[in-house]
Amino acid sequence: MEKIVVVGLGLIGGSLALDLKKRGDFKVYGIDQNPTHVKKAIELGVIDAEISFSELSEADIVIIAVPVNIIPKLTQKVLDVVSNETLVFDVGSVKNEICKAVENHSKRKNFVAAHPLAGTEFSGPEAAILNLFDDKVNIICEADKTDWRILDKAISIFKKLNMRIKMMNPIEHDRHIAYVSHLSHVSSFMLGKTVLEIEKNEEAIFDMASTGFASTVRLAKSSANTWTPIFLENKDNIINSLNEYIKNLKEFKDLIENNNEEGLKESMNNTNYIKSILNGLK
Amino acid sequence: MEKIVVVGLGLIGGSLALDLKKRGDFKVYGIDQNPTHVKKAIELGVIDAEISFSELSEADIVIIAVPVNIIPKLTQKVLDVVSNETLVFDVGSVKNEICKAVENHSKRKNFVAAHPLAGTEFSGPEAAILNLFDDKVNIICEADKTDWRILDKAISIFKKLNMRIKMMNPIEHDRHIAYVSHLSHVSSFMLGKTVLEIEKNEEAIFDMASTGFASTVRLAKSSANTWTPIFLENKDNIINSLNEYIKNLKEFKDLIENNNEEGLKESMNNTNYIKSILNGLK
Repeated sequence: MEKIVVVGLGLIGGSLALDLKKRGDFKVYGIDQNPTHVKKAIELGVIDAEISFSELSEADIVIIAVPVNIIPKLTQKVLDVVSNETLVFDVGSVKNEICKAVENHSKRKNFVAAHPLAGTEFSGPEAAILNLFDDKVNIICEADKTDWRILDKAISIFKKLNMRIKMMNPIEHDRHIAYVSHLSHVSSFMLGKTVLEIEKNEEAIFDMASTGFASTVRLAKSSANTWTPIFLENKDNIINSLNEYIKNLKEFKDLIENNNEEGLKESMNNTNYIKSILNGLK
Repeated sequence: MEKIVVVGLGLIGGSLALDLKKRGDFKVYGIDQNPTHVKKAIELGVIDAEISFSELSEADIVIIAVPVNIIPKLTQKVLDVVSNETLVFDVGSVKNEICKAVENHSKRKNFVAAHPLAGTEFSGPEAAILNLFDDKVNIICEADKTDWRILDKAISIFKKLNMRIKMMNPIEHDRHIAYVSHLSHVSSFMLGKTVLEIEKNEEAIFDMASTGFASTVRLAKSSANTWTPIFLENKDNIINSLNEYIKNLKEFKDLIENNNEEGLKESMNNTNYIKSILNGLK
């Protein structure tokens, strides 16, 4: 029975622990700097037991699922203590910093830089759910820097979770994900903020949320502790995407101000193309 | 058996027809300027039969479910021809224009200005679905200008659909709905536009959409023919909401640019309050 240690028992770490306990012959241990998280994770059956950092040398697999600003240093420390056969992978949503941080580590070959594209707006070990990763994409960066046996082990884990694997350069990953994921979070947070500031009537917000607001603002329920480091670590790409987004909003506002019916229709009809791209997604 | 005529066989008109056919002792007729829509609506069982505008005098209930720029003139014409006992109601998402348009009509008392807060991103008679209105809010404006027997008839219809009824002044309605619904649509359309412009790799969009993009961009699949008139008719309120939204996006961008970790956390933590408001909603 292989020993898995999950460092960081939040939504992603917790869901990985829960699913791997169910799908494989693993004993799953947890580490979290918050003792309440560890207690809760054991109570909920998310992990089998707690383990200390000094015992990581006995682990077969270490999963790093902490906020992205903590990942680089923590991964270095984990690689310092694990065995030569241990697979270490992170699940952070920004990839260039971590790839640079471990580039020259003597155990670089033990590491897989991964980003499972799955989640919900909830956080903490209570947010851990089964089947979160099924049919989702897992992006692996710089797979050529991982030992092939370690990579094979990682792929067998991701296959157990029913994930589709894509290889990507970390710089490309961070650029793509800024537009497709991080920008969605900023737009949703600011939509929530705008409505909360102006709309003092909470009952009206509740009553009217069925008109599209509830789904568009969903991501504004996400954790500030998770997302602050992501926005800062992928800063340049997010700033670029925000500049484009603000420019488009201003142009659309101008079309409305000028009663430009044809311009508005054209803009929306063109954007409807997103339907064909997302076809097949729920 | 009462005769209902639905004018405009799109998502909302079609869904009302479908549900009322099922839930009441009604014969449901349809009118649409697009003959394909009428044909499709009959084929799909959304309506029982077509009817001509000149036969509206025989209707017990007329539902006006056309784009908001058409509603004011069409409602006047419908009120001109219906009987003194006929209930006429519209379902438009902007209410001040229509309330002003019928203010002095001799059959103002036959009219109910309604806005059922329900929908999907799809359109046309094929988009008609059962149970769309259950547990949703229906806003009625200027109910005091409707004859009490006609209002009672309208309420009995909305109760059959399991809707909760709220009374609201049309000016207040348009201001609230601009923030809670219309702004969500603009933010989603512009998010889709930004991603489509920058992200030339459609496979990357598809693969990464599970990270929150799919839900945030959902409304960008909505119909330009429905939304162009809404944005123009509720112009002033939408411009105000867009100005606030753009201001908030710029401030958030500044926080990222200045590495203001505390500012980012505070902004997101405050916005998380939206959770408590939407609690109970899916």
